[in-house]
Amino acid sequence: MEALGRLSTDAYFHLEKTPLVLVLDNVRSGLNVGSVFRTADAFAVEKIVLCGITARPPHREILKTALGSTETVAWTESDDTATTVEQLKQGGYRVFAVEQTTDKIWLQDFLPVPEEKYALVFGNEVDGVADAVLRACHGVIEIPQFGTKHSLNIAVAAGIVIWEFARKLRSNQ
Amino acid sequence: MEALGRLSTDAYFHLEKTPLVLVLDNVRSGLNVGSVFRTADAFAVEKIVLCGITARPPHREILKTALGSTETVAWTESDDTATTVEQLKQGGYRVFAVEQTTDKIWLQDFLPVPEEKYALVFGNEVDGVADAVLRACHGVIEIPQFGTKHSLNIAVAAGIVIWEFARKLRSNQ
Repeated sequence: MEALGRLSTDAYFHLEKTPLVLVLDNVRSGLNVGSVFRTADAFAVEKIVLCGITARPPHREILKTALGSTETVAWTESDDTATTVEQLKQGGYRVFAVEQTTDKIWLQDFLPVPEEKYALVFGNEVDGVADAVLRACHGVIEIPQFGTKHSLNIAVAAGIVIWEFARKLRSNQ
Repeated sequence: MEALGRLSTDAYFHLEKTPLVLVLDNVRSGLNVGSVFRTADAFAVEKIVLCGITARPPHREILKTALGSTETVAWTESDDTATTVEQLKQGGYRVFAVEQTTDKIWLQDFLPVPEEKYALVFGNEVDGVADAVLRACHGVIEIPQFGTKHSLNIAVAAGIVIWEFARKLRSNQ
């Protein structure tokens, strides 16, 4: 799995990666998947795992929003998200779902530790992260929202959480 | 800034608006406009100004991604973005474009002052924020990027910057 991170372009290979794996749990829209790839390239994310029905490249919708980033960002696939979470935990990753639940850590309060490896799980556009997957994770991170919808697009939510991770890990906060 | 920590809970329960106007400078894709509306609702943004060729509701693509937020978030329209920026400045707003330029403030270094009102300008998917608009703004904010593309989707970029504003204005950072 780790070796895949080295298979991207030369330029990208030499960039120091943000120690973060993204797990997409049955994300239906290829447009959203492509947008996550584009953001993952921007913040030099280590890898994306495309789980369940999540669209895989090459795919018309993904290409439309990824703008070439499927060639630079390492990705793998998995039939079952919960199994992927278990494998990541066995591989030493701290795994957190991004979801709205009662038992969570607010995003602004989450302090990633530089020595740790992290994986973040993002869920389906309608159903969110599946319950079995939530149970498999070490915890849940929630983005505080102030409006009436309490709902963010998955690609936007991923952008916000990836930014927050990169900001905290690459600076003095 | 520390005092703001007290507004956080109140703001969350009473939907106090984040003192932020979003200006969309010729954003072509209705999908992107709708996604910005959805994020604006989530963070209780004050208003969106749709400028130039930016699509207006009702619009098939906007409806698809806004998920009803065009009914909650206030918006106005304008033919010319630079004129809108000048009007906002005359109205006491501090106006910043979100762009990649040599003379900018990195997003993480930008500290909004609670007493001020702010407006943020986001540009066209291909051309970014127009030069005349950049010149009209008080300054430019740039999201640091580490990858090969140096390009974020406009709806994702808006999500990241709005989050950063809300986080800093509604908490102790």
